[in-house]
Amino acid sequence: MLKTFDAGKLTKGHVGQTVVLNGWVQGWRDFGGILFIDLRDRSGIVQIVFNPEFSGDALELGGRARNEYVLAVKGKVVERDPETVNANLATGEIEVQVTEVEIMNSAKTPPFPIEDGVEVDESLRLKYRYLDLRRPEMQRTLYLRSKATKVFRDFLDEHGFLDVETPILTKSTPEGARDYLVPSRVHPGEFFALPQSPQLFKQLLMIGGIERYYQVARCFRDEDLRADRQPEFTQVDIETSFLSQDQLLGMMEELMARLFRETIGAEIETPFQRLTYHDAIHKYGSDKPDLRFGLEIEDVTDIVKTSDVKVFASVAAGGGVVKALNAKGCASWSRKELDDLQPFAARYGGKGIAWITVKDGEWKGPIVKFFKPEEIAALTERLGVEDGDLLCFSADKLKTAADVMGNLRLKVGRDLGLIDNAKFKFLWVVDFPLLGWDEEGKRFVAEHHPFTRPRDEDVALFDTDPGAIRAQAYDIVLNGYEVGGGSMRIYRREVQEKMFAALGFTLEEAKERFGFFLDAFDYGTPPHGGIAFGLDRLIMLLTGRTNLRETIAFPKTASATDLLTDAPSGVEQKQLEDLHIRLSAKALAAQAKAAAPAGQSDADAVAEPAAVKE
Amino acid sequence: MLKTFDAGKLTKGHVGQTVVLNGWVQGWRDFGGILFIDLRDRSGIVQIVFNPEFSGDALELGGRARNEYVLAVKGKVVERDPETVNANLATGEIEVQVTEVEIMNSAKTPPFPIEDGVEVDESLRLKYRYLDLRRPEMQRTLYLRSKATKVFRDFLDEHGFLDVETPILTKSTPEGARDYLVPSRVHPGEFFALPQSPQLFKQLLMIGGIERYYQVARCFRDEDLRADRQPEFTQVDIETSFLSQDQLLGMMEELMARLFRETIGAEIETPFQRLTYHDAIHKYGSDKPDLRFGLEIEDVTDIVKTSDVKVFASVAAGGGVVKALNAKGCASWSRKELDDLQPFAARYGGKGIAWITVKDGEWKGPIVKFFKPEEIAALTERLGVEDGDLLCFSADKLKTAADVMGNLRLKVGRDLGLIDNAKFKFLWVVDFPLLGWDEEGKRFVAEHHPFTRPRDEDVALFDTDPGAIRAQAYDIVLNGYEVGGGSMRIYRREVQEKMFAALGFTLEEAKERFGFFLDAFDYGTPPHGGIAFGLDRLIMLLTGRTNLRETIAFPKTASATDLLTDAPSGVEQKQLEDLHIRLSAKALAAQAKAAAPAGQSDADAVAEPAAVKE
Repeated sequence: MLKTFDAGKLTKGHVGQTVVLNGWVQGWRDFGGILFIDLRDRSGIVQIVFNPEFSGDALELGGRARNEYVLAVKGKVVERDPETVNANLATGEIEVQVTEVEIMNSAKTPPFPIEDGVEVDESLRLKYRYLDLRRPEMQRTLYLRSKATKVFRDFLDEHGFLDVETPILTKSTPEGARDYLVPSRVHPGEFFALPQSPQLFKQLLMIGGIERYYQVARCFRDEDLRADRQPEFTQVDIETSFLSQDQLLGMMEELMARLFRETIGAEIETPFQRLTYHDAIHKYGSDKPDLRFGLEIEDVTDIVKTSDVKVFASVAAGGGVVKALNAKGCASWSRKELDDLQPFAARYGGKGIAWITVKDGEWKGPIVKFFKPEEIAALTERLGVEDGDLLCFSADKLKTAADVMGNLRLKVGRDLGLIDNAKFKFLWVVDFPLLGWDEEGKRFVAEHHPFTRPRDEDVALFDTDPGAIRAQAYDIVLNGYEVGGGSMRIYRREVQEKMFAALGFTLEEAKERFGFFLDAFDYGTPPHGGIAFGLDRLIMLLTGRTNLRETIAFPKTASATDLLTDAPSGVEQKQLEDLHIRLSAKALAAQAKAAAPAGQSDADAVAEPAAVKE
Repeated sequence: MLKTFDAGKLTKGHVGQTVVLNGWVQGWRDFGGILFIDLRDRSGIVQIVFNPEFSGDALELGGRARNEYVLAVKGKVVERDPETVNANLATGEIEVQVTEVEIMNSAKTPPFPIEDGVEVDESLRLKYRYLDLRRPEMQRTLYLRSKATKVFRDFLDEHGFLDVETPILTKSTPEGARDYLVPSRVHPGEFFALPQSPQLFKQLLMIGGIERYYQVARCFRDEDLRADRQPEFTQVDIETSFLSQDQLLGMMEELMARLFRETIGAEIETPFQRLTYHDAIHKYGSDKPDLRFGLEIEDVTDIVKTSDVKVFASVAAGGGVVKALNAKGCASWSRKELDDLQPFAARYGGKGIAWITVKDGEWKGPIVKFFKPEEIAALTERLGVEDGDLLCFSADKLKTAADVMGNLRLKVGRDLGLIDNAKFKFLWVVDFPLLGWDEEGKRFVAEHHPFTRPRDEDVALFDTDPGAIRAQAYDIVLNGYEVGGGSMRIYRREVQEKMFAALGFTLEEAKERFGFFLDAFDYGTPPHGGIAFGLDRLIMLLTGRTNLRETIAFPKTASATDLLTDAPSGVEQKQLEDLHIRLSAKALAAQAKAAAPAGQSDADAVAEPAAVKE
């Protein structure tokens, strides 16, 4: 008896029809011999009624159903009495009078209720993910994720992009994060690596004349995990030939606007604001600023460098900066709140935050006495000081001062309720530096990667000031999260050679390092560039979640474990032999220890992992 | 100077317009100071003309271009003189008069020409895949693959399927083919496995109430490769709840019809023919018969078992069968062709093929004299014998006789030109046996997997004749290739217990073996089932190729090597240490050997793989 209708889609328009429904028992109540069951399927919930008047034998069978039983029922859709209409239920105006029922399956009592906002340890939810996924909010998330992916694909397809699959079993590269490795059975001692991104392949596709490529690509990084990292993650990977940066960014803005419109009905303003990396750091203390609110950071080095605040003067003299934030209206902060600024600064590597409160026209705080009147006047103007303000200062190297002030800005913005959670504020951060100075190695390193194209007008700086070269690299930022990034790539040999020289390689050394990839560039490489969007994070923001795991059907924990399948796990000795590998002493010891509690303390347990019974 | 038009899309309708084109030099010729270049981009080729009359300085610069140089040109679209129209070129009625040119990039001479039907060793094409991909036939294939995937997605999306991503880093399972393993850094001695298919996860999604799931899923099998296998391959993976087998198969027929219509414009007849496994084996000698032609195999055991052909009588008495194929019109085969039937049979495990030619009403052949007239009469009727026929017989166990005759049927069909290569003949093979008898282990094993649902009316056979139970399992076959397959799954505990009992497990043993997956079935599992399509093979058939590698952008060779990136490869010792693994003695020896020719014969080369310079 298979469904002819989705339970949640029944309306008054179906009254009088006989329908077959299949679904799970969400709840049941017996009122004086009349049985009411809330039947749930993917589409929603409908009330079904068993009554001796019309249900016959079905009443007795229906009475055996418990929560999460799977039922098939046949019955007639009827309008509810006005007084029993349930306005909280999409189907609340109708109910189904059951004439036949089949218990398709029984169910044990689930370890947590199948409903939204369930308060239960996340590890229990992950272990029973198949039950967790029945909860409406998880169903909505997976639905939205599927829909969002479809919007990406439709848009890119309409714009002439080909969906091309690139290998998962590929080559380990020395750059970037740590690779996941896969031992080769056919080639003893050799390994595949899982891709950290399809970067090389997408550029090779451009050399191969594909012109427009995209892929919803699985990527892998064996890094220590944080709340917003997963060992495998999904990016929408895009590469184009014969497009300028402006053309590409404009197209991506359209894509984002369509994504938000078609998934959650939000209208996104285009074109997006563009902020140089320099301005992002200086004004917002971050390369991914949240621009849903203002509270700009000001540079006051020029004003305070002559003051008697020793640390300001000495930092300025040493090439550092003094950054200031006017926390509007925060003069009323308690002493404790002000004291807490010091550990707050320390969290971001700062030495402290100097503060001044402005109340009744009076400036107060430990450093006020060291300012001359003209400095106070200049600060008043620069920071737009008004009564009730709290002025905060960080003096340090630019990076640290920016980081401290940037995070303080976020804290103040949140505390003051300046952030509109319903708003989606996109921006591009552009003109990233091409090269960064590696203090340890005393050399330049590529900030993005060694194939990132410099701005045309900055190429001359290779000879004079490589650190000042701006890259044709860009990040797309949404509400303070980096949701994507990319660059135009170098395609001309003379620029590539300058880049290698800046990185300290001869062309020969570069060839050794980048091998076949560099060869490919000799055969007519078109101008190209691309971008990748972090799909998991976009879905997180689209659904208003704060945890990437909520956006993934079967995620892993912070220790890269799948609590559902118990992966990773031990394997049979034979499998390792086939792959020409052995366990290290540490791994063997770990296995012996794991095996011991299970009562297998004999020596064999080491050679033959105890975890593997199957 | 970035393109405003695609080169291959220019037509007479653009005459008079000034366009910018970007592309590669397909060829060039200089006719008395006038330079003609065929400029190629993804969309096709157009002729561009450099003439002192309108090109100015561009002529000199254009003259430096060689094949595969990347050019940007600006120019006016003009109609060609009638006598210079090129009917072989889509853009052959027009040409572009160049006024500006930029050499975007130069190119070395490619190792093979960038054109269709190139006759060059495949390994060279794979090493320079980025050039191979520029060839029009590869471009068409990747375009078609992208399009086909889109059709799958659109159809499934319209039918309420959610695209859900399942993990690539998952758990090793003891069933099925050999797993690719990934050592865990965080959990010493433990391993992830790459999925052979998302089977467990798609069933868990059904338990999770998703109802309709699909995924274009990468799958991995570490098996010895054949021409039509790749270590990683793509399947369109589908699972549904609350649908009958008939409903699912009908929906998939619609999907196939749409796929063929929207990719290659072929109209596919629906509904597809359905053939039981029994009939497929008996009539066509194959569970994936090519039904583009007839030539049915007949069972003649009943007729010949009483004959004086000793081998027929003894095989029949031993429970074997005698299968016959009437190769219509093949009586004219040469003696050599007839002799070749014996090694042909041997190739499929057969002991031989007995044959009879029928010419001028006379039956000839070594075994004719052993038939009684009534047997000849019966054979004549059963096989529809006419003058000019060749009758072939195989006597053996059913499996062997079917295999020999099935392959002979294919050979005869091809030889006689009975196969219409323009035809797409789909069919379903259904009612596969649920259990197979394992002679070695003297026990039943699951033919599909232990969760495959038996036909309802066959469940009673668990107690009496388990080998006769038919499964709700099906394959979809196209022109003799299996392009997909699946089954309805067991969802009721009492059936699952019977299945385990038939396989020789207690429920306890099954729990140990299938762990969390079996637990999941206790919480209200809906009736569900699914199918998976082999995307690579479908694309191969859609594009008329015979090699899976032609359908994949970056494929691996038969020894699971990527000739482009040289994966797999050695890795740094540090990487192995991080993963708590060591190389086996064999792997170390292989490395030492590989290192030696490169001149590194010292002992260190073993500990520190020489292949790894980066």
